[in-house]
Amino acid sequence: MTATEGNNSTKLNFLGISGSLRRHSANRGLLRAAQQQLPEEVQLEIADLSDIPFYNADLTEKPAGVSRVLDQMGRADALVLACPEYNYSLAPALKNILDWASREPNNALLAGKPLAIMSAGGGMGASRAQYHLRQVCVYLDLHPLNKPEVFANAFAGGFDAEGHVTDATIQKQIATQMQALIDWTRKLKTS
Amino acid sequence: MTATEGNNSTKLNFLGISGSLRRHSANRGLLRAAQQQLPEEVQLEIADLSDIPFYNADLTEKPAGVSRVLDQMGRADALVLACPEYNYSLAPALKNILDWASREPNNALLAGKPLAIMSAGGGMGASRAQYHLRQVCVYLDLHPLNKPEVFANAFAGGFDAEGHVTDATIQKQIATQMQALIDWTRKLKTS
Amino acid sequence: MTATEGNNSTKLNFLGISGSLRRHSANRGLLRAAQQQLPEEVQLEIADLSDIPFYNADLTEKPAGVSRVLDQMGRADALVLACPEYNYSLAPALKNILDWASREPNNALLAGKPLAIMSAGGGMGASRAQYHLRQVCVYLDLHPLNKPEVFANAFAGGFDAEGHVTDATIQKQIATQMQALIDWTRKLKTS
Amino acid sequence: MTATEGNNSTKLNFLGISGSLRRHSANRGLLRAAQQQLPEEVQLEIADLSDIPFYNADLTEKPAGVSRVLDQMGRADALVLACPEYNYSLAPALKNILDWASREPNNALLAGKPLAIMSAGGGMGASRAQYHLRQVCVYLDLHPLNKPEVFANAFAGGFDAEGHVTDATIQKQIATQMQALIDWTRKLKTS
Repeated sequence: MTATEGNNSTKLNFLGISGSLRRHSANRGLLRAAQQQLPEEVQLEIADLSDIPFYNADLTEKPAGVSRVLDQMGRADALVLACPEYNYSLAPALKNILDWASREPNNALLAGKPLAIMSAGGGMGASRAQYHLRQVCVYLDLHPLNKPEVFANAFAGGFDAEGHVTDATIQKQIATQMQALIDWTRKLKTS
Repeated sequence: MTATEGNNSTKLNFLGISGSLRRHSANRGLLRAAQQQLPEEVQLEIADLSDIPFYNADLTEKPAGVSRVLDQMGRADALVLACPEYNYSLAPALKNILDWASREPNNALLAGKPLAIMSAGGGMGASRAQYHLRQVCVYLDLHPLNKPEVFANAFAGGFDAEGHVTDATIQKQIATQMQALIDWTRKLKTS
Repeated sequence: MTATEGNNSTKLNFLGISGSLRRHSANRGLLRAAQQQLPEEVQLEIADLSDIPFYNADLTEKPAGVSRVLDQMGRADALVLACPEYNYSLAPALKNILDWASREPNNALLAGKPLAIMSAGGGMGASRAQYHLRQVCVYLDLHPLNKPEVFANAFAGGFDAEGHVTDATIQKQIATQMQALIDWTRKLKTS
Repeated sequence: MTATEGNNSTKLNFLGISGSLRRHSANRGLLRAAQQQLPEEVQLEIADLSDIPFYNADLTEKPAGVSRVLDQMGRADALVLACPEYNYSLAPALKNILDWASREPNNALLAGKPLAIMSAGGGMGASRAQYHLRQVCVYLDLHPLNKPEVFANAFAGGFDAEGHVTDATIQKQIATQMQALIDWTRKLKTS
């Protein structure tokens, strides 16, 4: 253990990825809320999936957009996945970028990385999709936070028309989860 | 019950969809094997997903490729889904076309439709992905066959370099499953 | 198809099983509510699991309680499973009686049988447990209803201290599901 | 961080729990093999579930057997769960002891505890059950190892008639997993 590892002021770099491609997605709104809740020394970038094609093993060159997001993943100390639920399972765009990332040699982008999952959805707030995502994390050797789970009901208000979180309770849940992710990330970095 | 419903010679129309976009995909090979095993009165078309974009609720017009596959779904008496496993869950391309289909009014393309699932994969033959697909079927009100489940190990031979099934045991499993799907489809059509 | 199969006045026999062993279980309350909602020609018995031991392949004789419930299952045209959620998965008592039933030769008690699932639980109403139960149904060759799914929130009122359903909305959901199960059972019996 | 935490010679205490109640269970055999593979400073006790009743919230006193196993859990630095697959999901006896443990105030027996999962089963080696167990771990705030996953095929030899592991490959997998659990336990204990 070096002098700074685990130190509470160490800078951390999180990467946020939302499975929804909508411009005013409430799931992307959760990531923006997370940005606002983080302390100064923790940065949260938000990935742009709009130009990521479906993974296809026949492609011989990695598309530029894929390289961009994979670089962001490589630099990130932890991932924050905003996980909408489509038809009781994952949004294809979110699963797809994880599939691209999994193809790197030795799983170097993902192995051992900490992770938080948050969702905006209907009455059950996307819980069904989150457990499918957790099964994916086993294979990818990611370490998702157990608690707190964040399930925000996007149909009961709490978001404005542009998908920004306006509800104080949801903001608080996100702040709590981000603090837990900071602690978990520092714990897993310590050796 | 009309004179012909449930009659063993009624024509049936199945639609095969593979989650892999690779040209020589073993999963698409399973669908071609199914075509060969079906009796004359049952036709199996194979959908082309190569031009299907990710679902995005902001799109105001349905892309041409999506309309084409959704028309095929609407005409099909049953679906045959070739379900590869990527990182312990579904292939995004397969999930994505189901997400597109689910947006039709009243779930008219899918509600109550019978379904068979087959997979080519590694040692466990994609079993983890199939159960995620079955959870999706609950929401989409699809009726998957319970048995036989088809899990073909694509790494133990049984497929040629172009993804054609060459193994007689796998061909037999597919033939048995297709007969079960014919029976299940006729049973569910009877009223 | 005989003259009476599929006839709307044919008598049907349902077996209700609750995974909770509590005396005033809200899940057993759902089964009692189902009894009240069924038309005269459909009978719903409720199984008693209080004397059923854990399945153990070393036991050479079937315990009397197990024989009693398995006989009830054999006579039932359909099952109604009240499925509480314990720690994000199934109640052991419910899973255990299904495990006992699965040991009968040729899966004779269960194969092809229709099924409805209902749950009383917390905020998400036991949805996580229901999907585990549906995966079990694949192996057991049971045919669960897709819709309507019944998730009753037992912590928001709606039940009295003895676990009886007092909420009219929940009673209505159960009535709708029971009618769907009657229709599904008649459809699957037709040949 | 104290002087000894994280030290490679710190004593560790693991608790093994098998979901099978059979005398010659192959799953209990996996736990015995783990005992043999562990270094001297790590002890693995095996819990006895034979006298554990089904959890029932009506019981006002904790049965003696339950107290015994919960004491063992409380003393354990990590759990080793031998997870058979019954009908595509968990063995009730394994789920049941976790349900009992979850009722302790503040989840004190389980919160934050590391865990390894191993299974002896059929062709797919109980993989379906393991993912249900992992979903349970989310609620219980347990931290299962991602890798290596241990799926031993008990129908292809590798075990003797008393359930002892005789296959060197399985023994090696278990040794690798136990070393990974030691490392994971030490990492999570460090603060």
